Amino acid sequence: MSNVPFDGPIFDGLILGAHLATLDGANGYGEIADAALGWRDGVLTFVGPRSQLPGAPDALAREVIEADGWITPGLVDCHTHLVFAGERAREFEMRLQGASYEAIARAGGGIVSTVRATREADEAELLRQSLPRARALLADGATTLEIKSGYGLDFANERKMLRVARQVGEALGITVRTTYLGAHALPPEFKDRAEDYITAVCEWLPRLHAEGLVDAVDAFCEGIGFSPAQTRRVFDAARALGLPVKLHADQLSDLGGAALAAEFDGLSADHVEYTSLDSVRTMAAHGTVAVLLPGAFHVLRETKLPPLQAFRDNGVAMAVATDCNPGTSPLLSLRQAMQLACTHFRLTPEEALRGATQHASRALGLHDRGVLRVGMRADFVHWNVGHPAELCYWLGGQLAHGIYAGGRRL
Amino acid sequence: MSNVPFDGPIFDGLILGAHLATLDGANGYGEIADAALGWRDGVLTFVGPRSQLPGAPDALAREVIEADGWITPGLVDCHTHLVFAGERAREFEMRLQGASYEAIARAGGGIVSTVRATREADEAELLRQSLPRARALLADGATTLEIKSGYGLDFANERKMLRVARQVGEALGITVRTTYLGAHALPPEFKDRAEDYITAVCEWLPRLHAEGLVDAVDAFCEGIGFSPAQTRRVFDAARALGLPVKLHADQLSDLGGAALAAEFDGLSADHVEYTSLDSVRTMAAHGTVAVLLPGAFHVLRETKLPPLQAFRDNGVAMAVATDCNPGTSPLLSLRQAMQLACTHFRLTPEEALRGATQHASRALGLHDRGVLRVGMRADFVHWNVGHPAELCYWLGGQLAHGIYAGGRRL
Ligand SMILES: [Zn+2]
Ligand SMILES: [Zn+2]
Repeated sequence: MSNVPFDGPIFDGLILGAHLATLDGANGYGEIADAALGWRDGVLTFVGPRSQLPGAPDALAREVIEADGWITPGLVDCHTHLVFAGERAREFEMRLQGASYEAIARAGGGIVSTVRATREADEAELLRQSLPRARALLADGATTLEIKSGYGLDFANERKMLRVARQVGEALGITVRTTYLGAHALPPEFKDRAEDYITAVCEWLPRLHAEGLVDAVDAFCEGIGFSPAQTRRVFDAARALGLPVKLHADQLSDLGGAALAAEFDGLSADHVEYTSLDSVRTMAAHGTVAVLLPGAFHVLRETKLPPLQAFRDNGVAMAVATDCNPGTSPLLSLRQAMQLACTHFRLTPEEALRGATQHASRALGLHDRGVLRVGMRADFVHWNVGHPAELCYWLGGQLAHGIYAGGRRL
Repeated sequence: MSNVPFDGPIFDGLILGAHLATLDGANGYGEIADAALGWRDGVLTFVGPRSQLPGAPDALAREVIEADGWITPGLVDCHTHLVFAGERAREFEMRLQGASYEAIARAGGGIVSTVRATREADEAELLRQSLPRARALLADGATTLEIKSGYGLDFANERKMLRVARQVGEALGITVRTTYLGAHALPPEFKDRAEDYITAVCEWLPRLHAEGLVDAVDAFCEGIGFSPAQTRRVFDAARALGLPVKLHADQLSDLGGAALAAEFDGLSADHVEYTSLDSVRTMAAHGTVAVLLPGAFHVLRETKLPPLQAFRDNGVAMAVATDCNPGTSPLLSLRQAMQLACTHFRLTPEEALRGATQHASRALGLHDRGVLRVGMRADFVHWNVGHPAELCYWLGGQLAHGIYAGGRRL
C-alpha cells in the first residue's frame, strides 16, 4: 500500500480503535484488536490493525472516527415475510385464551386474513405498513434483507408485494433480495384445485421475472402446503429462467423437502426441523445452506430440533433468520433470532453470528458481504459491547451504535 | 366537573383520540375508545371518552396532543438486579461451547465474578454501567423499576449498590424501589459460615434502612442459597423495622419459600415454579403476589411451569418481571418478558399486561399506579399499536411512542 501514489485521501471513512469480528477464516471471530477499518466507494479497502495503516489517519481519510466496542459485518436477514398488511395479534390472543384453530379460522383469522388485508392495501399503504418492520430489523443491525411474496396469491398482488419489497430497499438504502413465494398457500379462489394453482404460479413467474422483481423462487412444501411434486413443478419453472431456488422444508414433517431443494442446487432449505440424515448429506453435496428459524420454533413451542450436529458433521452451513411474519414469527430483530438460536438450538454465539452474516449471505447467493475483508461491501455494524457474544446474550436493548450500508451511515 | 370554577387551564397536558387500556375493573382491558387522558401536577385528572370533556380542549389544557394507537399504564418492573458491574456473556458462550459449571467456576465465572466486578467498581462507575440497562427498560415502557442489591455482600458494597439504585431513579426521573438482598449468596469471606453471614446481613439492615436506602427486604431461599430458617432470620430483622419482605422462592425446588413469604405478609414470592398448592393457598390468604420471571425460565431452559391455574383459581395475583441480571436473565425489556410469559407460561396478553402494571405495582406495595384512573400517578405509555395484545405479540421492535412519568414526557 505504501507504493500507491498518494495524492489525497484514499478512504472515504476510517474507524479506528474498535475490535473487529471479521469472521474471516474458518474458526473463531477473526478478531482484530485496536483495528482500523477503511472504505472507499462503498467497499472495504482496509481491514487490519491500526498499526499497519500506511500513514497518518487524517491524511488518509476524509472522515476519521475513534471508537471502542466491536464491529461485525452487517447482519443479513435471509428469510422474512415482512411485507404484509394487518397483523394477527388478536389471533395470538385468541389462541392464548384457548380458542381452537377452527374457531380462529371461523373468526376470520389465519393466513387468509393476512391475504385479505394484503390484497386490500394499495402499494403505498403496504409500504407504509411494512417500513416500520424493516426499520426495526435495521435498527438491530440488519443491512441486507430478503423479503418474500406469498400473501398476494394472484398475479397482481404478488407483483404488488414484490414491488413494495424493492421499495423498502430503496427507501432505507439497504439491499433487499426478493423471493417469489406464490406457492405459499392455496388462495380461496383455487379451493381444491392445487394443481391448477401451481400452473398459475408457474405462469406468473416469467412475467414477474421480466419486470426484474424476482431474485429467487421459494415454495411451502408441507402436508398443509404443497407436495414435493408440486414444488418440483415450481422449481422447474425457476430453473427454466435460470433463477435460484430455496424451500420452506421439513418444518412439521419430513417430506424430503430439503433434499429436493438441494437436488435443484438450491441456495437454502429453511426450517429443516424434520430433515433426515440422508437429506443432510444431499444438502452437503450441493452446498445448500440450512436456514434455522428459531422464532417460529419459539412461538409454536416446537420441540423437534433440527439435525444440528449432522449439519456440523457434514459441513452444511447453518444460517439464522427471523422468518418475520404475522402468523408464526412476529420477530422484529435478527439479534433476537440469534438469541433464540442459542437458547433453543444451543448454537454457540459464534455460530449464530456467522449464521446471521456469512452463511446468511451465502443463502442469498451474495458473495460480496458477510465477512469484513478488503474488497467486500462496506456493510458493518458498530456495537456497544465488550464481546461479540453479548449480541446473543442480551434479550432486548439497543446495542447497535452505528450501522453502515455501502459505507453510508444509516 | 362543570361546577368547578374555571379560571385557567385545569390540565397540564391532555392526550386526545387514542384508545386507553385503563385496566380499571377486574376483567378485560378497560378499553375507552376516542379517549381523553388529562393530568395535572403529575396526577391523572381526567380518564374518559373525549366526548365527556368539560369544555374545549385548548381552553382546558396547557398542552393538547392528538394521538392514535393505545395508551396503557406505565410498565412496572417489580424484580430486577440491574445494578451490577461487568457482564457474563463469555460465560454464556462457554456454556454453549459445552463447558461444565465447574469449568466456568474455575475460569472465574458465576455470580462470584459479578460480585468481584461490582465490589471493584466505585459508585460513579457502577452507575455508568447500570444506566444503559435502566434506559433500555425505560425505552420499552417501564416507568417504575425495582432494583435489588445482592452483588456487594458486605456492608459497604451493598450500601453502594442501593445508593446507585437510588441514583438511577434520580438520573432518569422515574420511581425506583430498592430491595435489600444481602442474603443473595454467600460471599467468599464467609465460606462455610452461612449462619454468621446471615447475622451480618441482619446487622447491616438497620444501618442501611437508617440511610433511607431500603424499601423492602428479599432473600434467595433455595438449596443452593439460604435455608428457610435463615430466611426467617432475615425476615424477622425486616419485621422489626416494619419493612415489607419478598422472596426468591421455589425456583428450583419446593422449600416452602412462597408460603414463608406469605406468612410474613410478604409483598411477593418470586419465580415460584415449584410452589405447592398448599403454599398457593397461603399466598392467597395473605395477599402475596406471585411474580413470574419467564426470562430466567427461558435462559435456563426450565420445563417446570409455575402452578398458574392454581394461582388463578385461588385469586393469587400474578405479576411479570424481567429479573434483569447478568447470569440467568440478561433481559433488557419488560415487554419481552411479557412475550415470554405468553409463550412459555401461556398467560393471555391481558394477564401479562396486568402482570406488568397493576399486579407489579401491588408487588411493590405501590397503590398509586398500575391502572389509568383519576387520582393515580400520570405514568403511562403511548404505544404505536392497533391492539394491546401487540405488546406481547411482537418480539423486538420499538413500539413505545411516548413515555410519561409523573406527567413528564421522558
Ligand atoms: Zn417463512
Ligand atoms: Zn432475581
